[in-house]
Amino acid sequence: MINQILHTDKYQLTMMYAHWKQGTKDRVRVFDAYFRELPFGNGFAVFAGLQRIVDYLNHLQFTDEDIAYLREQPEGFDELFLEELKNFKFTGNLHAVPEGTLVFPNEPILRVEAPIFQAHLIETAILNFMNYQTLIATKAARIKRVAPDDVLFEFGSRRAQEADAAIWGSRAAYIAGFNGTSNMLAGKWFGIPTIGTHAHAWVQDSASELEAFRSFTDVFPNHSVLLVDTYDTLKSGVPHAIQVAKEMEQRGHRLKGIRLDSGDLAYLSIEARKMLDQAGLSYVQIIASNDLDEHLISDLKAQGAKIDGWGIGTQLITAADQPALGGVYKLVAKKEHNEYVPTIKISSNPEKITTPGFKTVYRIVNKESGKAEGDYVSFVGEDVESQKQLKLFDPIHTFKQKVVSNFTAIELLKPIFLEGKQVYDLLGLPTIRDYHQQQLSLFWESHLRKLNPQRYYVNLSEQVWNVRMELISQHKKF
Amino acid sequence: MINQILHTDKYQLTMMYAHWKQGTKDRVRVFDAYFRELPFGNGFAVFAGLQRIVDYLNHLQFTDEDIAYLREQPEGFDELFLEELKNFKFTGNLHAVPEGTLVFPNEPILRVEAPIFQAHLIETAILNFMNYQTLIATKAARIKRVAPDDVLFEFGSRRAQEADAAIWGSRAAYIAGFNGTSNMLAGKWFGIPTIGTHAHAWVQDSASELEAFRSFTDVFPNHSVLLVDTYDTLKSGVPHAIQVAKEMEQRGHRLKGIRLDSGDLAYLSIEARKMLDQAGLSYVQIIASNDLDEHLISDLKAQGAKIDGWGIGTQLITAADQPALGGVYKLVAKKEHNEYVPTIKISSNPEKITTPGFKTVYRIVNKESGKAEGDYVSFVGEDVESQKQLKLFDPIHTFKQKVVSNFTAIELLKPIFLEGKQVYDLLGLPTIRDYHQQQLSLFWESHLRKLNPQRYYVNLSEQVWNVRMELISQHKKF
Repeated sequence: MINQILHTDKYQLTMMYAHWKQGTKDRVRVFDAYFRELPFGNGFAVFAGLQRIVDYLNHLQFTDEDIAYLREQPEGFDELFLEELKNFKFTGNLHAVPEGTLVFPNEPILRVEAPIFQAHLIETAILNFMNYQTLIATKAARIKRVAPDDVLFEFGSRRAQEADAAIWGSRAAYIAGFNGTSNMLAGKWFGIPTIGTHAHAWVQDSASELEAFRSFTDVFPNHSVLLVDTYDTLKSGVPHAIQVAKEMEQRGHRLKGIRLDSGDLAYLSIEARKMLDQAGLSYVQIIASNDLDEHLISDLKAQGAKIDGWGIGTQLITAADQPALGGVYKLVAKKEHNEYVPTIKISSNPEKITTPGFKTVYRIVNKESGKAEGDYVSFVGEDVESQKQLKLFDPIHTFKQKVVSNFTAIELLKPIFLEGKQVYDLLGLPTIRDYHQQQLSLFWESHLRKLNPQRYYVNLSEQVWNVRMELISQHKKF
Repeated sequence: MINQILHTDKYQLTMMYAHWKQGTKDRVRVFDAYFRELPFGNGFAVFAGLQRIVDYLNHLQFTDEDIAYLREQPEGFDELFLEELKNFKFTGNLHAVPEGTLVFPNEPILRVEAPIFQAHLIETAILNFMNYQTLIATKAARIKRVAPDDVLFEFGSRRAQEADAAIWGSRAAYIAGFNGTSNMLAGKWFGIPTIGTHAHAWVQDSASELEAFRSFTDVFPNHSVLLVDTYDTLKSGVPHAIQVAKEMEQRGHRLKGIRLDSGDLAYLSIEARKMLDQAGLSYVQIIASNDLDEHLISDLKAQGAKIDGWGIGTQLITAADQPALGGVYKLVAKKEHNEYVPTIKISSNPEKITTPGFKTVYRIVNKESGKAEGDYVSFVGEDVESQKQLKLFDPIHTFKQKVVSNFTAIELLKPIFLEGKQVYDLLGLPTIRDYHQQQLSLFWESHLRKLNPQRYYVNLSEQVWNVRMELISQHKKF
C-alpha cells in the first residue's frame, strides 16, 4: 500500500496547525463515523472499507517530499510544526464494525479516540474509503437479493470512477456475495476469482464468427464463454456457438457458456435456451451483460428470462442511482481528566444534529426468534448485556417503543487499533463473506426486501437520549 | 506512478493468450476510443485523462509477482506465454486530443495502433481513466458556466469514489476552470492551489464560538474563512465573525471570508452580506457549500444570493446525475500488407454500430466568424486541410447538410506515442486551462448553454460514410 497521508482536506492541516499553535494538539477527542440515510431506498447498508482503513493507518508517514510541499503553502506553517509532522503516527484507538456487518443510519460504525491532532488528519481518507466501499457493498447486496442462486460477476472496470474504485469496488461486491470480477488486479490483490471471455474484437478480427469461436475454444477447451451478438444473436451467434459446442463434444470438451450483451435479453435468452436445449446442450450456460442492475434483473426474471449468470458493470461499480454515501465523522466527546464530556453540533436541519457522547452500539437479538429486534446505542460503560429488560424507543418519535427481554446484546464495534497498535486480525474475504451471510440471517425478510423495506430501528439508551436533549436545550438558549 | 498492468479485464489476457497461441499476436490493429452520448444533457464534453494514460503506458511491466499470479489461473496459461509477457512493453502508436479539448459523440478522441497483443491489454485502463476524468471535467465545465466570475473549489474528497477519484477528479475540475481543491495530495501532485478553512469540530472543541473564531484567526490572520453555522448562522455565527473581523482590523488584518454550510443559502447569504456590509466589512467574502451543483448555483444566483465562492463536493466529484461516461474502444481497422482494412461491428442497436477505418478528426473553423462549423471524421490520408469546399452532412439524417468554404481544418488527434516512444510533451496544467478556454471560444453560445444546447455535428467524410454503408450491407446479407 502506498502512503496516502496527504490524501486529506487542507482544513485538517490548518486545524492541526491551529491546535499545535495553541498547545491543544494532544487533547484526546472522540469522533463517530456514521451515515444519516440509507442509499437506494434499501433497508440496510453493508459496511466495507476496513481493510483499506487499517492499511492506511499502518502506513501514515509524512515524507520529506510531503513536508517540502507543506512548507510552500501560503498559510506559512511554522518550521517546528513541520518537524512535529515528521514524527507523526497514529497512536489512538479505532473501533469499527467488521466488514460485512449490516449497518443502519445514525449509529457509529467506526469510532476514533485519539489526540485531536491525529483525529483530524485521518477523517478525509477514512470517510472516502468507508463511503465508497460501503456504498458498493450495499448495491451489490441488493443485486444479490434478486438473483440469489445465479452467478454474479463484477464487470465494471472501464466505467468505474478511476482505478481505485474499480479495484476496491470489486472487493466490496465480493463481500456482499458476488462470485467474481473481471479485474485482474482485484484478483491478484484480494484473491477474488476472475472471469473473462472475449470481446467483439475477437470475432471481428477472425475470418468469420465460426472461425472465431473455433479458435477460441481450441485455446480454452474448458473455459470458453462465447459472445454471440457481434453480428446477429439468433441467426448467427447462437447457431455458430452450437456448431462449435457439438464439435467440442466430439473431442470430449464442453462449451461453458454463451454471453448476450445487447438486445432484448428476455426474448433472446429464452430463444437461445431453446436452441441450445434442442441441440442437447442444456449444460451450456447463458450469461447476460449490458447495463444491468437489480431492477432490470428482477424484471428479466419476472419475464422468464433464461439467464444463469450476470455480468454487472456501470450500475454496480458507480452505484449509479445514488453514487455517494453521505457518511460523516463528527466530534462527539472530549476526554478531560479521564472523563468523556459529550459535545454536540446543532443544525437548523434537525437530522444533522449529532448524538453526543462516548458511545457504542449493540444489536439486540431475540433469543427465541434468533432475529434482531433493533440496534441500541449506549454510552460505553452502560451495562446492556446483562440487563433483563431493555426499553427500545425511537429517538424521534419516542412514543414508538417496545420492551424486549430474553435477548442477546451483541456489541458491534470491535477494537481495531488500541494506542496506535493494530489489535484486530483482518479477516480473509471468505470469512467476511460468510459473516455477511450470517448477518443477513439475523434479519426478518421485511427489512431486507428491495422495495419499501420495513424500517429497522436504531434506538438510543435513555441516558444517551437525555444527554442529547439536555445539550440541545443548552445550545438553544443562546 | 505505480505499475498498473493488471488493472485490466481478464478477457484482455485470454484474448492475448489466444492470439499468442494461434500466432497472430503481432498483427497490427487500430482501435478508436470514443463515447456515444454526451453526459448531463450537455452540448459538449471536455477531454481529460491523457496525463494518466501516458504515465500508465510508460510504466507498463509485468512483475514476477504478476506472472506468478497469472500462472495460478485456471485457464492454464502456457509457460512460454508468461515468458513473453515478461518482455511486454507498448511499442505502438497512440494519438489523442489534448486535455481540455471539447469533444463530441462518435468521433475518435483517442486512437491506438498497435500489435493486437498490446492493444487489447491497455483497453480497460485507458477507458477507465478517460471515462472518469472526461466526465468530471465536463461536469466542472457546466458548473463553471453558471458561475464564470466566482471562485470555485473542489471539496469532494470524502464523498469521492475512493482515493484515485478524489485526486484525479480534482485535476479534471481544475482543467475546466475550477480555482482550487481541498485535497492536499492533488495539490502536491499537480500543483493545484489548495484551500482549507476549519470544520464544525473546531468550534465545538473551543470554549465558545467566539473563542474558536478568535483563536483560529490568530493563527491564520491572512487566510481565515470562518464557518458560521455550527450553532445558529445569523444569531451567533455571523455576529461572532463580525466581532472578530473588527478586532482583526485593529491589528491590521483582514478576515478573508465566512462559510455557510447549511440552511437556506439564498436567504442566509443575503442577510449575512447585509450584516457584514453594515459593519464595514464589504471585503469579507461569502463562501457557500452543501451539496451544490450547477442547477442549485444557477438557482441561488437567480434568487440574488450573495455568494462569492462555492465549495462543491459530492455532485461534482461523483458526477452524481450521471456517474459514468460510456466511452468505448472499438476495433476499426486491420493493418494488412501496409494497408488499413476497415472492419465493423454490427448491432441490433443502430447507435452501437461502429464507424470503420483508420480515421482522424478535424475541427472545421470558419475563418470569418472564428467559430467551429462542425467536426469532420475522415480517413487518415484524405486531403481535408487544403480543400476549398467541404460538404458537411449528418451521418444519420444525410439530408441535413451544408457546404463550407473559407475554413481552417484543425486536426484534433495529436501523436502522443510513436512506435512506443512518447513524442508528445505533456502540457502543464496552466497551459491546459488556457487551451480549454480557447477551445470554448471556438463555439457559439448555443452549443455551450446548460439546458437544451444546440447540437454540434460530427460529420463523416463521404469516403468514410460510403465504406460504413458498404460494410453494413455486406454483414446484413448473412
